[in-house]
Amino acid sequence: MSMKLEGNILVTGTNRGIGLELVKQLAERTGGEAHIYACCRAPDGTRAEALRDLTTQYPGKITIIKLDMSEEDSISAAVRAVKEQIGDGSLNLVINNAAINKPQTPAPLSATGKEDMMEVYETNVVGPFLLAKMFLPLLQRAAEMKSTGEGDKMSCRRSAIINISTLISSIEKCPETFAIAQMYPYRTSKAALNMLTRCQAEDFKSHNILVTAIHPGWVRTQMGGEQAPLTPLESVQGILSTMSSLSNKDCGMLLDWQGNTIPW
Amino acid sequence: MSMKLEGNILVTGTNRGIGLELVKQLAERTGGEAHIYACCRAPDGTRAEALRDLTTQYPGKITIIKLDMSEEDSISAAVRAVKEQIGDGSLNLVINNAAINKPQTPAPLSATGKEDMMEVYETNVVGPFLLAKMFLPLLQRAAEMKSTGEGDKMSCRRSAIINISTLISSIEKCPETFAIAQMYPYRTSKAALNMLTRCQAEDFKSHNILVTAIHPGWVRTQMGGEQAPLTPLESVQGILSTMSSLSNKDCGMLLDWQGNTIPW
Repeated sequence: MSMKLEGNILVTGTNRGIGLELVKQLAERTGGEAHIYACCRAPDGTRAEALRDLTTQYPGKITIIKLDMSEEDSISAAVRAVKEQIGDGSLNLVINNAAINKPQTPAPLSATGKEDMMEVYETNVVGPFLLAKMFLPLLQRAAEMKSTGEGDKMSCRRSAIINISTLISSIEKCPETFAIAQMYPYRTSKAALNMLTRCQAEDFKSHNILVTAIHPGWVRTQMGGEQAPLTPLESVQGILSTMSSLSNKDCGMLLDWQGNTIPW
Repeated sequence: MSMKLEGNILVTGTNRGIGLELVKQLAERTGGEAHIYACCRAPDGTRAEALRDLTTQYPGKITIIKLDMSEEDSISAAVRAVKEQIGDGSLNLVINNAAINKPQTPAPLSATGKEDMMEVYETNVVGPFLLAKMFLPLLQRAAEMKSTGEGDKMSCRRSAIINISTLISSIEKCPETFAIAQMYPYRTSKAALNMLTRCQAEDFKSHNILVTAIHPGWVRTQMGGEQAPLTPLESVQGILSTMSSLSNKDCGMLLDWQGNTIPW
């Protein structure tokens, strides 16, 4: 059964693409009690204009938070800012959507260097690792506050971390996709993110915090390119519908935007 | 069919544990034409004494190479040193065995930080990534030199990269092992190493270079601890026997020291 998402929801990488569309649809589809923390690297820059417009369109519903996932200090500051606003409330849902891909143009091994490998891992894996670690107390509180009635049923309305992964994170499916896009740094980082997801799922299940990785499909964004078959609208409709119906059995899994399991 | 390993063989992390035992058994079991490049961080230090003793025991058969997998310059220098000695010969086999685990004592999430995540990835994934990239021409040459007779059959005698992985790299099996050893940095790095293995297998198959990840078992070493069931001797006997019989079907797989497939 699919139910509306609610509560305090934090999304990273929201100035464009899937992240921006997530904030938009969450603002549209959640009730009056819901609040969205929309994180991006440069809230005041020209690239965040569409995001700032959204906050005007939904007054009081969205807070923009400055967050650079490659900087530990930036993550700490963002967590402090959210904690201050939430006070003795809780955080119900963290969507780790921010990710980078380097080198930016599809590059073979010969054009890929150490910095590419390190920087992509830092933002795509270590950022989500730190964010989850720092938000753990607020997520635990969310799970505890909804412990009556629902028993130990996990859900994205109660307390959850969603790590946005990708089909090409699948080690199993690598031979099918490698020729189209080698992307060593991105692939290795996303396989590591899947492992992080599964570790967090094990680690946090006693707190009834759901942790699931979701592949958004191949989406027509700056990262996905123009030949991608899905629009951000379609992808995010699928992601939110899938997220709404997640429960214990989905914890520690990699699913696509339609809810289908992808092998590791 | 299992055949002796031969040719020019490079092993990383050889001053102790599985790496040292690999050099020892390779020195014992390969023919007079074989040469072993034994890499370690500090060839002149007290910790490399056992390795230096081996070179005396097998005169002319082992060259110790200084190599720190966390330093790109060190990797470049090691590759140059090996190339100089090999001249117009080739490199048949690279065994990426060097790896670190941080924090050193089993640590939960709360005691694990950004530096642990970054440093473990740097040594366990980016090091092998760079080493393979830099040795690619020598590995290609090895594959070409043995192209007559064997057709396109891949093997560790012809041209191969073996990435030493671990059972706990398996995302699938994480729930079975997480409680014993959380090790977020190590687990995420080894899942990424598996992806690297699979990417390299796809990338290099047209050159007939075999790439396989091998789990050495739970071995009684400084890293494995005293309660581990396997001795380095037993583990390395299994690894070398498995390596000797690898062929095309094993390329891009994760196998244990007895040759059994481990799911991703």
